[in-house]
Amino acid sequence: MIPANSLVALLTDFGLQDTYVGQMKGVMLSINPALRVVDLTHYVPRHNVAAGAFILSTAYRSFPLGTIFVAVVDPGVGGSRRPVLIATEEYYFVGPDNGLFTLIVLEAGPGRWKVWHLDEPRWWRSSVSRTFHGRDIFAPVAAWLSTGIAPDRMGKPISDPVLLDLPLPHTLADGSVVGQVIHVDSFGNLITNLRPPEGPASVEIEGRVLGRLRSSYSEVDVGQPLALVGSAGFIEIAVREGDAARYFQLSVGAKVVVRPAIT
Amino acid sequence: MIPANSLVALLTDFGLQDTYVGQMKGVMLSINPALRVVDLTHYVPRHNVAAGAFILSTAYRSFPLGTIFVAVVDPGVGGSRRPVLIATEEYYFVGPDNGLFTLIVLEAGPGRWKVWHLDEPRWWRSSVSRTFHGRDIFAPVAAWLSTGIAPDRMGKPISDPVLLDLPLPHTLADGSVVGQVIHVDSFGNLITNLRPPEGPASVEIEGRVLGRLRSSYSEVDVGQPLALVGSAGFIEIAVREGDAARYFQLSVGAKVVVRPAIT
Amino acid sequence: MIPANSLVALLTDFGLQDTYVGQMKGVMLSINPALRVVDLTHYVPRHNVAAGAFILSTAYRSFPLGTIFVAVVDPGVGGSRRPVLIATEEYYFVGPDNGLFTLIVLEAGPGRWKVWHLDEPRWWRSSVSRTFHGRDIFAPVAAWLSTGIAPDRMGKPISDPVLLDLPLPHTLADGSVVGQVIHVDSFGNLITNLRPPEGPASVEIEGRVLGRLRSSYSEVDVGQPLALVGSAGFIEIAVREGDAARYFQLSVGAKVVVRPAIT
Repeated sequence: MIPANSLVALLTDFGLQDTYVGQMKGVMLSINPALRVVDLTHYVPRHNVAAGAFILSTAYRSFPLGTIFVAVVDPGVGGSRRPVLIATEEYYFVGPDNGLFTLIVLEAGPGRWKVWHLDEPRWWRSSVSRTFHGRDIFAPVAAWLSTGIAPDRMGKPISDPVLLDLPLPHTLADGSVVGQVIHVDSFGNLITNLRPPEGPASVEIEGRVLGRLRSSYSEVDVGQPLALVGSAGFIEIAVREGDAARYFQLSVGAKVVVRPAIT
Repeated sequence: MIPANSLVALLTDFGLQDTYVGQMKGVMLSINPALRVVDLTHYVPRHNVAAGAFILSTAYRSFPLGTIFVAVVDPGVGGSRRPVLIATEEYYFVGPDNGLFTLIVLEAGPGRWKVWHLDEPRWWRSSVSRTFHGRDIFAPVAAWLSTGIAPDRMGKPISDPVLLDLPLPHTLADGSVVGQVIHVDSFGNLITNLRPPEGPASVEIEGRVLGRLRSSYSEVDVGQPLALVGSAGFIEIAVREGDAARYFQLSVGAKVVVRPAIT
Repeated sequence: MIPANSLVALLTDFGLQDTYVGQMKGVMLSINPALRVVDLTHYVPRHNVAAGAFILSTAYRSFPLGTIFVAVVDPGVGGSRRPVLIATEEYYFVGPDNGLFTLIVLEAGPGRWKVWHLDEPRWWRSSVSRTFHGRDIFAPVAAWLSTGIAPDRMGKPISDPVLLDLPLPHTLADGSVVGQVIHVDSFGNLITNLRPPEGPASVEIEGRVLGRLRSSYSEVDVGQPLALVGSAGFIEIAVREGDAARYFQLSVGAKVVVRPAIT
C-alpha cells in the first residue's frame, strides 16, 4: 500500500450551483492546510451511482500515485449504507458503500484491495448532519488520511463492499463483440464499454453501420459520424465537430457491435 | 481579531462561463503566490444580494479560522456604494457595502465585528475599471490582507454597514412558528429560515402537511416529500431522490409552519 | 524571456460536466506536485477558435508574469495541426497551432514572440490518445515547463504560427469608427472590438443610438441600456441589471459605431 499524498480529487453529483463542494474543501483545509484539491467533476447525473462508478473509472489513472479520491453519489445518505475507505495498491477512495467503487475494486483485482468501514467518529466533523456526509464524514477522513493517519485507526476492515452488477460485453459465435453505450459526455460522444480488438474491426450502433474503427476525427468530414478509441481506452461513437447523441438520437444502453473486419 | 490566513474563499454571481473569476484569482496570485483559493459558489442568482447574504451565511463556518471571504454580488458597482472589509472574531469578509454581509454581522453579535471603508487605492489594482471591482479592488485587498497588511492601513473604520431587512420567523399564540422558504438549492430542496424546535414537531408548507420532522431521507419512500434539518441547521423540505421545488411547485417566499407535536 | 513560474491557467471548450479538465490537472500534478492551477474558463463556445482567441486576449494580463496558459479549443485534434509552445516577453502559451493565439502574437508585437513546434514525445504522456492532446501533450508540456525545462528541448523553433483573420475596426471619413460585437458574456453584455476614443463620443449599435459613452452602470436607470468601457478595456453595450443581448436581440457580429461627440 502506497502512502497517501496530499492530493484529493473530488467526484460528486452536487453540481457547482450550491456551496456544497466549497464547504467540503473548507473542512479539508481546516484539517490539513497543505492539502491540494482538484475537481474531477460535480456533474455525475444526480443519484446515479452506476454512472458515477463508470465516470470515476475512466479518470482516476490520470492522477499521481497515492491520490485520495472522495466520491459522493449518495442517495442513501443518512440511512444504513456504510461509509468506507478503499485502498488499492495505487490509490485511496473515500465515499459511500453503495457500489460507486465497483470498477475500482474489479480493476485492482482479487487480493489487491482493502476496505475499511469508517466507524470511528473521532475522524469526522464534530457534528454530523444526516444529509451531508460528504462534508461531515468523507471530507474530514480524506484530510486526516492525507496527514498520515493510518486507515486501521479510522475503521474496521471489511471484505464485502457493495458491488454493482454492471453491464459487460459478450462475444458471439462469429467473433463479434456486443456491448453498449455506458455514458454520454457533454460533447455528445457515445462512450461504450467495449475495448478495441487486436485486429481491424467495423462498428455498428443499433444496426447503423459506422465502418471501420478510425484513429482520429480528421479521417471523416465535419458533421460525419465515426467510431474511434476515446481517451479512456473505450470505443466511442462521435460526430466530427458535432454531437453523436443528437445525430443518432441514442443514449445510454444503445447496443453497439464490433465485428472483426474481413481484410 | 484572529490573523488572516492565506486561504481565500470566493462567492459571486459571475458564473463560470466567463473568465471573471479566473481573472480575480490571477490578480490575487500576482500579489501573494502562496495564497490558496476555494470557490464557494459563483451561481448566486444574478444581482440578488439577499440570496447572496443567505447563501454565504450557510457556508462560511465550514472554513478554517482566519479565512478571507471575497463576496461579490454587486449591482451597484461603479456607483456610490462603499467597498468594505469586515472582520469578525473568526473571519474576514471583503466586498460591496450593500447588505451582502448582513447575516455575518448579525451572527457575530453586537460589538463583535469591525468594518472598514476601503478607501486606500494603494492596495488596489493600478487601474480600476468601473465595472469590475471584484478584480480591481476586492481581490487585491484580500490578497494583501493574506500577506499580513493590517485592515487599518486599508481604510477608515465605519460603524454603519448596510444591513438588509431580511424576513425573520415569528411565533403564533399556539406556539407554532411561521417562517418561509429562503433559498432553493440545485437539488430542488426548499431551505427555510426556521431552526428546529427542541421537542417533536410537525411541518406544513403552504397548508400541505408534511408530518413530523424526519432525521433522514431514508425514513420515507423514494419520491415522497419530507421535512428535515438540512446541513446548515435550518429546516428544509425535500423529496427523497427527487426535487421538492418541482413537486410542490413552490419557491422562495413559500410559507412554512412548524407546530409543536402532540406527543 | 521571463522564466516560467509554477502557475498554470487553463482555457478550454471542455465544460465542467466531464472529467476532462480534472484529468489534465491530475497529469500536471503527477509531473510537478508544486504546480498551482487556475481555471480561466472551460466554456469557450465549442470548437470556436476565434471566440477562444478573443476570450484569452481579454484575460491573460490579470496573471503574474511567467504564467503558463494552456488553451485548448481544438477541433483538429489528432489531425495534422501542430502542437505549439509560444513565449512572449511576459507569458507562455501551450496549445494547438490553429489560430487560438493570434491576438497574443499580435499584441506581443513583431520580434517579441517565439514559437516552438512541440515534437519531442519525451515530454508527453507515455501513451498519447488521438482525441485528447489537452491531457496527453499540452498538460505535460506545461508541467515540465513549470519545472524549468527549456522550450528548446521540447521542440523546434518555427516562425509561421497560424494567425486568424480577425475582424478589425475601420475609420470613416467623418472620424467615426465602425467595429462589431465580438463576444457576448454570460451577463448578456455585448463586448466589441472597439477601444474608447480620446475625447467624448456617442455610440450606436445597429442604428440604435445609445448616447454618450458612460463611465458606470449607475448613470442610467435599472433596465436601461448604455455603452461603457468594460473590464478588458473595450467598449461594451450593457443594460443596467439586465441583459443587453436579449434587450437588443443582437449577438456576435452586430455593427457598432463610435462617433466623436460635438461638444
